[in-house]
Amino acid sequence: MPELRKDPILGRWIIISKERRKRPTDFPVEVSTGIGGFCPLCPGNESSTPPEVLAFRDGSLPANGPGWNVRVVPNKFPALIIEGNLSKEGIGLYDRMNGIGAHEVIVESPNHDHNFADFIPVEMALVFKAYKERIIDLEKDQRFRYVMVFKNHGRAAGASLEHSHSQLIALPILPRMIVSELEGAKSHYKYKERCIFCDIIRQELQQKERVVCENDRFITIMPFAPRTPFEMWILPKRHSSSFYFQDDDEIHALAELFSESLQRLCNCIPNVPYNYVLHTDPLRSGGLEYYHWHFEIVPTLTSIAGFEWGSGFYINPMPPEEAAQFLRESLTIP
Amino acid sequence: MPELRKDPILGRWIIISKERRKRPTDFPVEVSTGIGGFCPLCPGNESSTPPEVLAFRDGSLPANGPGWNVRVVPNKFPALIIEGNLSKEGIGLYDRMNGIGAHEVIVESPNHDHNFADFIPVEMALVFKAYKERIIDLEKDQRFRYVMVFKNHGRAAGASLEHSHSQLIALPILPRMIVSELEGAKSHYKYKERCIFCDIIRQELQQKERVVCENDRFITIMPFAPRTPFEMWILPKRHSSSFYFQDDDEIHALAELFSESLQRLCNCIPNVPYNYVLHTDPLRSGGLEYYHWHFEIVPTLTSIAGFEWGSGFYINPMPPEEAAQFLRESLTIP
Repeated sequence: MPELRKDPILGRWIIISKERRKRPTDFPVEVSTGIGGFCPLCPGNESSTPPEVLAFRDGSLPANGPGWNVRVVPNKFPALIIEGNLSKEGIGLYDRMNGIGAHEVIVESPNHDHNFADFIPVEMALVFKAYKERIIDLEKDQRFRYVMVFKNHGRAAGASLEHSHSQLIALPILPRMIVSELEGAKSHYKYKERCIFCDIIRQELQQKERVVCENDRFITIMPFAPRTPFEMWILPKRHSSSFYFQDDDEIHALAELFSESLQRLCNCIPNVPYNYVLHTDPLRSGGLEYYHWHFEIVPTLTSIAGFEWGSGFYINPMPPEEAAQFLRESLTIP
Repeated sequence: MPELRKDPILGRWIIISKERRKRPTDFPVEVSTGIGGFCPLCPGNESSTPPEVLAFRDGSLPANGPGWNVRVVPNKFPALIIEGNLSKEGIGLYDRMNGIGAHEVIVESPNHDHNFADFIPVEMALVFKAYKERIIDLEKDQRFRYVMVFKNHGRAAGASLEHSHSQLIALPILPRMIVSELEGAKSHYKYKERCIFCDIIRQELQQKERVVCENDRFITIMPFAPRTPFEMWILPKRHSSSFYFQDDDEIHALAELFSESLQRLCNCIPNVPYNYVLHTDPLRSGGLEYYHWHFEIVPTLTSIAGFEWGSGFYINPMPPEEAAQFLRESLTIP
């Protein structure tokens, strides 16, 4: 059973995932080479993953066989496991709880070589729809407080499988990054009675220098204080705290802008490894006036080194105003 | 001039280091290969670094020439620069200040191929003495509030030069990791009137399972909630909040245990890349009852991927109790 542990000084939580345990000699000292070979995410290999929890299939084909466009399965090597009751324990100074949670893989396309940045909006929309349906389903489980959706693209960004996929982890606690965001946004709201993300969008649309692209409903900006070169945020222009409240039209508009933003990034830096995360409100929080859901896209272009570990402070060699200009010029949309 | 920027939601600071600015095509998409060639840190090449700010030399040899054992120079491509007055500015929602600070390189040995983990204690003690002297000197500059000392060892851990060296950055603000540590420690002290680190050492010495090694004055433990496999902390057993209050005997005892700890790690995982950071109290805080200085050693064995970026939460496949046992068994000290 995996275990959640809390650092007694910082209050930072860690997942000790014994199921993924390794001997010292198993650790790749440098980034591992070569992925190739058998792909458990390809059509025809459905039996090499745990049974699917969701799939978008043409017609009335049976579950756990080919014919799907997007397929969601439990992670075979989960960081947290779904069975059991949550139990918390203190050991002297320390706190731990058993690692109850869900860890799922969203297989984004039946095509092994289809690069996410090249998905057409209708394909990408299907992926976002899968996120939405899974969050709505997991919200019913009262043990969970948050669902974190994320993608690792490229080996340097932590991907261990080539086939385009994202992941979600449902957690029994609120992760501290979300707690900090909620607290920061709440204190702005208390003072101004406005959502800080709405204020940011307003200021960015006025200043223009950090806007990458936009459509009627969404906007892609580089944050004022980006952790890495080319970090991007995609936000709905209309205030909304819950990703899973988006209707089909909104999801399609999101897919259009997401796809355009990634294309601009990949045109500018070919084969760039990146991570993205979905930041939405906690489960069952039911619409917050002070919070605003968004995606954060973080390219892997600099390394987390001693200074970052020690300080929680990032050194970024690329001003976001210049990065945004590179991306604005990197693609001519017909 | 570099710039410090604050994220308006999280309060997280970023250094935008335009002096290190790159074009999109300059970014290594994967870890760069090959370092070799000319080494600016080797004896004889002193003129290829800015003039030294400290050196431990045999006899009365002139500055900025060979003959040194440890040499400290300003970083040629600094993240922050030392000249100028600190000025702060608001731009709508956003806050920024100019990037005043010091960024120095501690060259740890004249020998290009001398691996830090193989330093004998007397060599390592000289490096720690250089940290101490530089912190004491930088403390006089009223613009600085913190000196972060850190080491990147190995390419995967962010090192760009092979020659053994560490770095320090003097900052005009307290980094948020330090703020969090100070706050966590303070709230424990308020409640219990004891230092939380002293309590941790007491509990670890009782439980024993996370202790790697110890001597009369220092102890190396794996933290209860480690971010990465084999994360280690080295702490003084006697309460002390300031690294730079250590006398020569203490520095020598530290060097002995530090060297033993690294040897154990490298015996267990040969050529492991790692970072370490020194966490000490803020400049001019003059001895805190609730804080306890220490080193944190973080091996680069797992990658920071989407989940970590999005949640501030780490997944660690290696329980520290097992890791500590591997290290206890990895070396027989005569």
